[in-house]
Amino acid sequence: MAKIRLFIDHPLAQGQGIALSSDQAHYLSSVMRQEAGDEILLFNGRDGEWLARIARLAKRNGDVVPERQTAPQMDPPDLWLLFAPIKKARTDFIVEKAAEMGAARIVPVQTDFTNSERIRQDRLQAHAVEAAEQCGGTYVPEVTDLNPLSRLLDGWDGTRRILWADEAMVGPAETLAGLTKGPWAILIGPEGGFSESERARLSAMDCVTRISLGPRILRADTAAVAALALWQAELGDWRRD
Amino acid sequence: MAKIRLFIDHPLAQGQGIALSSDQAHYLSSVMRQEAGDEILLFNGRDGEWLARIARLAKRNGDVVPERQTAPQMDPPDLWLLFAPIKKARTDFIVEKAAEMGAARIVPVQTDFTNSERIRQDRLQAHAVEAAEQCGGTYVPEVTDLNPLSRLLDGWDGTRRILWADEAMVGPAETLAGLTKGPWAILIGPEGGFSESERARLSAMDCVTRISLGPRILRADTAAVAALALWQAELGDWRRD
Repeated sequence: MAKIRLFIDHPLAQGQGIALSSDQAHYLSSVMRQEAGDEILLFNGRDGEWLARIARLAKRNGDVVPERQTAPQMDPPDLWLLFAPIKKARTDFIVEKAAEMGAARIVPVQTDFTNSERIRQDRLQAHAVEAAEQCGGTYVPEVTDLNPLSRLLDGWDGTRRILWADEAMVGPAETLAGLTKGPWAILIGPEGGFSESERARLSAMDCVTRISLGPRILRADTAAVAALALWQAELGDWRRD
Repeated sequence: MAKIRLFIDHPLAQGQGIALSSDQAHYLSSVMRQEAGDEILLFNGRDGEWLARIARLAKRNGDVVPERQTAPQMDPPDLWLLFAPIKKARTDFIVEKAAEMGAARIVPVQTDFTNSERIRQDRLQAHAVEAAEQCGGTYVPEVTDLNPLSRLLDGWDGTRRILWADEAMVGPAETLAGLTKGPWAILIGPEGGFSESERARLSAMDCVTRISLGPRILRADTAAVAALALWQAELGDWRRD
């Protein structure tokens, strides 16, 4: 039985007890049926993964004590995912998948054809936390607030290259072999694609590389996972160097 | 506005009228608000994509007439996806994603650690049809009934190689470069992985290649999309030859 993993926003050090939040105590006691003396795993995004023991547990409070580090801190490569929010369930899904696939930062963007005007950033961030707990990572990607794409591109630092999965390029995929290492952002469009002016602007940017994701039109959530997989295998931490 | 695409299990030929099923007529009239004279796209998995005109449409019946072929038949590469069904929503999702990603056949397998004893094959097949309609494909992958993995491997034809995404191999991914072209099946395990005896058996098969999908543990649905993307880019119809 795999141990419970909890993200906890607190420094982790041997023997230094940590008070659980009300939600964490509830989750451990009532949902997962843990009790004092049980072992869990903790990570905070900075100090790696720690084996910890539950010192005290009530319904809405408790303490855990880190005993020893079980994995070093592993940060993902410097890869952002930019995507246009779609229907709620699929937006949740994209955030979950991006965390599992090792995106360092998740940036919802508002494009000319994006339907949603706002997102629940706190809810999406909670999905990223849950995905990190589940996938064994020691890092939780930040989910930013919704950014208008035009404003984001106005201030874009061209040293971060953009891999634009252009749904209008249906056909054989470009290979990612030969792309420069370094900071990247993957950009996935909304259903309905980008507007003509967005397309013109992206095409004119030196730091943008357009790719196709094959001969079928992928939904945005599928395209996000597929593009992250190709990037990770070629340039990221799936690569065996 | 993209045209409505319908899969229709009937030969498609110019001027040869086709009676709509009750569900199709309902979908076109009541859901999509179409009427006689409107154009839709049809495919049947054999004759490519056709532009057709609605000749007559009532609430529960109607006729469409193919006018001209708009795309040739495009079959996906000879790639199967074998996966252990998980929770309902995620199983639906895997089928949808496999169809979009261009699997030719989708095979739910019952492993030692699979929770579900049965699947609704008809419902999963309907998801594959809907995904094919959505993604612009002209092919609908067959979703088979649930197969015990052991029986499937008993009768396995070794000329179809198996790409085993082994969740126990957490670490840098193998590159798929250099793998033999030809018929393949991707095998994704259940949450909880494969049993010791399943692992021993797979490891002993000459036609099996194990790969890792990076340093995080992916959910089965994420792993399916990621493995399909890597395969398609290296050996399948995403490749630009």
